[in-house]
Amino acid sequence: MLKQVEKLIIITERIIISKIIKYIESLEIKAYTIYHDVSGQGQRGMRSISGGLSRFGENIRIEIIIEDEEQAVEVAEKIYNKYLSSRYAGIVYLEKIRVVK
Amino acid sequence: MLKQVEKLIIITERIIISKIIKYIESLEIKAYTIYHDVSGQGQRGMRSISGGLSRFGENIRIEIIIEDEEQAVEVAEKIYNKYLSSRYAGIVYLEKIRVVK
Amino acid sequence: MLKQVEKLIIITERIIISKIIKYIESLEIKAYTIYHDVSGQGQRGMRSISGGLSRFGENIRIEIIIEDEEQAVEVAEKIYNKYLSSRYAGIVYLEKIRVVK
Repeated sequence: MLKQVEKLIIITERIIISKIIKYIESLEIKAYTIYHDVSGQGQRGMRSISGGLSRFGENIRIEIIIEDEEQAVEVAEKIYNKYLSSRYAGIVYLEKIRVVK
Repeated sequence: MLKQVEKLIIITERIIISKIIKYIESLEIKAYTIYHDVSGQGQRGMRSISGGLSRFGENIRIEIIIEDEEQAVEVAEKIYNKYLSSRYAGIVYLEKIRVVK
Repeated sequence: MLKQVEKLIIITERIIISKIIKYIESLEIKAYTIYHDVSGQGQRGMRSISGGLSRFGENIRIEIIIEDEEQAVEVAEKIYNKYLSSRYAGIVYLEKIRVVK
């Protein structure tokens, strides 16, 4: 049986991984996947805390499955506002997927 | 030219990679991509064979392109039932993508 | 606020990473993410330059966000025609995602 759910993806600087994980867990999210060997080159939306354009930097990708669409959007916006809107380089996005149950 | 096809994604424990690959190949699937440097923290659906909740574990992600939707669902459910419904931690899901031909 | 955009994904042989990056940048694309620890086994569409079927090879995945759908398709087809239609093993595909702004 397939169930449509939201996949929330965060790609950001590796140095804030533990902060993001702590924050995710504070939102009662218990399951996620991390891709470690990721790097990024960025311009718009990838400006780093140092104020300069991010160099070809060490990134991570965190992937979270959230069943409810409204909750997924809320979590995505919280993470974006807390970490990515001004402080760290990165991107947050949503994809609809169909999970086997 | 773009063609809409299904992308089947399996994220599971690294220890069963060779079993899953053998099983995939027994289903006449000859092309796939593997992401190695992946880890996971799980709750629901991520219970490991040891019976406990999976620790922050070493995972892999396998990605398979399947043209026919019905076949994609069938393969996804077979893999889920064989490995993930009760024995290993992990998730199987489908995404519609448009491939350049 | 969510905005629907295109995610363009290229999975190909690691040996051409610098060529592809140079080409992407010549198309005025300034931001992308690279996944390094990826391997592939291929058949159709994965034939390598050597003329034989690609072995279980060292691959990379490059991910680019492009706002305009028409431009995304154009870039995808250019990369496919230049590198993947006959010379290197790989795949190029598009997914619709919703980015937090």
